[in-house]
Amino acid sequence: VHKTKIKIAEDALDANTTIAHANRADFDRAQVRVVNMMSAPGAGKTSLLERVLADLGGARVAVLEGDVQGSLDADRLASLHVPVTQINTDPGFGGECHLDANMVRSAIPALPLDKIDLLVIENVGNLVCPAEFRVGEDARVMVAAVTEGEDKPLKYPLMFRTCELVLVNKIDLLPHLDFDLDRFLYNLDKVHPGVDRCLVSARTGEGVEEWRAWLERAAAPAAAPA
Amino acid sequence: VHKTKIKIAEDALDANTTIAHANRADFDRAQVRVVNMMSAPGAGKTSLLERVLADLGGARVAVLEGDVQGSLDADRLASLHVPVTQINTDPGFGGECHLDANMVRSAIPALPLDKIDLLVIENVGNLVCPAEFRVGEDARVMVAAVTEGEDKPLKYPLMFRTCELVLVNKIDLLPHLDFDLDRFLYNLDKVHPGVDRCLVSARTGEGVEEWRAWLERAAAPAAAPA
Repeated sequence: VHKTKIKIAEDALDANTTIAHANRADFDRAQVRVVNMMSAPGAGKTSLLERVLADLGGARVAVLEGDVQGSLDADRLASLHVPVTQINTDPGFGGECHLDANMVRSAIPALPLDKIDLLVIENVGNLVCPAEFRVGEDARVMVAAVTEGEDKPLKYPLMFRTCELVLVNKIDLLPHLDFDLDRFLYNLDKVHPGVDRCLVSARTGEGVEEWRAWLERAAAPAAAPA
Repeated sequence: VHKTKIKIAEDALDANTTIAHANRADFDRAQVRVVNMMSAPGAGKTSLLERVLADLGGARVAVLEGDVQGSLDADRLASLHVPVTQINTDPGFGGECHLDANMVRSAIPALPLDKIDLLVIENVGNLVCPAEFRVGEDARVMVAAVTEGEDKPLKYPLMFRTCELVLVNKIDLLPHLDFDLDRFLYNLDKVHPGVDRCLVSARTGEGVEEWRAWLERAAAPAAAPA
């Protein structure tokens, strides 16, 4: 039974990879760069997007918003006058815990690909399954809040290992936490040595310019991986 | 394809329910009460267990620890001289994001059921799928940290709706956050009107006695649902 289950899972991941390639081909044809943003629930993905999306140095951006239910985050981002498309995962299975390539594929006709340079996909808040499903992105950003503890890279290694940038958020709270930043960074380098990281606070704005600059680079065609 | 997928998911949930009932029968036979503890990553499940497990008014307790990888939490709890059994979900599927009834069933032979009154199952940190899979528990406790924002009950309603107790953790940080506790409780009551809740801080110990008392009651045979 267990082997069968693994086989089904592998087939599902293979199918996902095929569809992710098709998404990527569509995005490339439209010359749109795609960033897949992931984190645990409440780490601050939406707040960090609110900080930067209104000004990306001229790059035109849209957001694809993934949630189990509702459109709370989409509503927040739409108020920045950024086009936002919502995917709700709950028809799938009492709520899928991640976006997969096929969900993103279904949304492509609703995306203004010919009017944007960058698509940010805000994934469902979850540190496990979103890391397993490529959706056609050029780069992955994950947000880890310092309130979540130093051990998270060790407990959720795939997530930390498969991203190009780690935003270490809520650093304004460091004086009030028993959080050892050096130990967190040590654990991060253990699972993903040297990965880009920015220390940020969506609340105070600290470090946000570095995040904005990273996203501007990601929006430029030159940022394409070889 | 979508209907087939839903059908497969429903069959999987039906199979899970059957196994959960078998687990429950085994626990009942051994007169062991079972609490399934769930939260987002880093909300404080382990820290809240560390606060109370060493003294539950005479009730004997063991922990079944669910993680994608590693045994960091199990090691922390074992230092309290509480028996801890580890389940790692990563052989399943690049890391299953939840415990299911069958994983718990596999662990039953390793549990000291004849020596305990209460089994605490610490689930994988995730606000989506753990809520969908009963594992044979008598009650569910979820931990929501105030650092995660007021909107979480609305975004992850199944999790908040299917638990018997909500531990609102990290309240020591309230003075440093833009978190509206009344709005959080309003959202909580919207998805699960009147559910038991304790405001706690694993860090300072505030509210921990109320949590301890709840767990002591959960360990008593009288707490069994009719």
